[in-house]
Amino acid sequence: MAHEYRTRRRIEFVDTDMAGIVHFSRFYVLMEQAEHEFLRSLGLSVHGGVDADGNTVGWPRLAASCTFSSPAYFEQELDIHLTIRRLGDKSMTYDCLFSRGETEIARGELTAVYCRCNPGEAIEAMTIPPGIRSMIEAVPA
Amino acid sequence: MAHEYRTRRRIEFVDTDMAGIVHFSRFYVLMEQAEHEFLRSLGLSVHGGVDADGNTVGWPRLAASCTFSSPAYFEQELDIHLTIRRLGDKSMTYDCLFSRGETEIARGELTAVYCRCNPGEAIEAMTIPPGIRSMIEAVPA
Amino acid sequence: MAHEYRTRRRIEFVDTDMAGIVHFSRFYVLMEQAEHEFLRSLGLSVHGGVDADGNTVGWPRLAASCTFSSPAYFEQELDIHLTIRRLGDKSMTYDCLFSRGETEIARGELTAVYCRCNPGEAIEAMTIPPGIRSMIEAVPA
Amino acid sequence: MAHEYRTRRRIEFVDTDMAGIVHFSRFYVLMEQAEHEFLRSLGLSVHGGVDADGNTVGWPRLAASCTFSSPAYFEQELDIHLTIRRLGDKSMTYDCLFSRGETEIARGELTAVYCRCNPGEAIEAMTIPPGIRSMIEAVPA
Repeated sequence: MAHEYRTRRRIEFVDTDMAGIVHFSRFYVLMEQAEHEFLRSLGLSVHGGVDADGNTVGWPRLAASCTFSSPAYFEQELDIHLTIRRLGDKSMTYDCLFSRGETEIARGELTAVYCRCNPGEAIEAMTIPPGIRSMIEAVPA
Repeated sequence: MAHEYRTRRRIEFVDTDMAGIVHFSRFYVLMEQAEHEFLRSLGLSVHGGVDADGNTVGWPRLAASCTFSSPAYFEQELDIHLTIRRLGDKSMTYDCLFSRGETEIARGELTAVYCRCNPGEAIEAMTIPPGIRSMIEAVPA
Repeated sequence: MAHEYRTRRRIEFVDTDMAGIVHFSRFYVLMEQAEHEFLRSLGLSVHGGVDADGNTVGWPRLAASCTFSSPAYFEQELDIHLTIRRLGDKSMTYDCLFSRGETEIARGELTAVYCRCNPGEAIEAMTIPPGIRSMIEAVPA
Repeated sequence: MAHEYRTRRRIEFVDTDMAGIVHFSRFYVLMEQAEHEFLRSLGLSVHGGVDADGNTVGWPRLAASCTFSSPAYFEQELDIHLTIRRLGDKSMTYDCLFSRGETEIARGELTAVYCRCNPGEAIEAMTIPPGIRSMIEAVPA
């Protein structure tokens, strides 16, 4: 699979640290924001939707990693390229490339699990419903 | 009233920005953390408690301000001095002094309102129950 | 003076807290981001510029306050309306209105001081240079 | 190698999101704070130190990953167990286990590179000096 989504983000002052560069923890946030934008582009929301059975559903994170190759600075605009690497029964894994022009900034990976997240109940993984699955599979490469 | 609470916080790397100092927005977070620690010291929680009628209650913020007099730097420890300026029918206003040794760093003010915060309902201000009020009034100056 | 700037921001997941609404500390960040966008629209940067004498200059915050009237939720888009209330010798005070459609969400105020911020030196307030002053004064109402 | 460091952190309100749990990006920050506390316990700082040649030195991040097994909630205290997995020529890799009592919350990994970070120059990896290396090697398991 190589379904993909592209977006762009400007680095804000609050994203920087005293080393003068973007704090590494912000890349996980940027990755998530790209994922949410992607889901929104499909008409889905990452959290708070209600399924056919009345359950609140969401995509809690199972794992996330990032490797940093070049620093990013205040007011720069980063290109964020999200690719669906794997669409499993209950989870989805994204690759995420951050770049600025020809310069690679960072590469991340994010695995989110489709879950029932009813308030007051334990979070439970569920099979991704066919309707959502087919929307994701229809995303062009 | 001059009931008070004192605590201390170390400045973390993520709190700093590219100007090399603590980002101003972090002072509001530090002020809130001191408030929560104060409420915890009384056996109260700032959010998620349930009152006698089964309502989820909390203390949403009505207003917060801060004036900055001296920068704070990574790894410094700040003394945070919280004073209850006013305990109203439904709200509480704190003064908050941030200092490092003899140096004043910032002064803030925070007003929180006692509210019913049931999921799926509008947030609604409520009279602070006598039990909570008397606990707060018993805090020594 | 009523020189103004308008922008819009979508609420991100990371901006929310367990009360289900935008954490109050994020409004100060949003206010700052609007200020930076405004300065950028004038060709200025909030930090890291170098003046005619070779000093690194910036706009450290002197004070910021915010009053919250209505909660904001994930994925909502907020209109942010920045107005220059006062342009002083060395400082600038903005009013900031956050709204969503006809609903007022919050009102903030931010005072920033034009400063020499050379690395390793104490931060020092300076007179806003005529060139910057005239750019700001030329912003339409 | 199994040199290790243990600390503990309380979950703050601002760490939570609308799903009612700690936002995943905060685990990377907690991991870093444990690393900094560890370096501080050795008399080192993660940033801003000056080496024998007058260079500003620090530990920029090369990579960080985290896997999440159980959610963490507001006001809980997490035990953070940092282990040095690998001390390379120029870098150090930590394993990080987050737990609460017997419950595993998350497992992370962080690789930091010893670098020259002089202001205005490109960041450059350097060999970890013998003095720092021997301090790290002396940390008990």
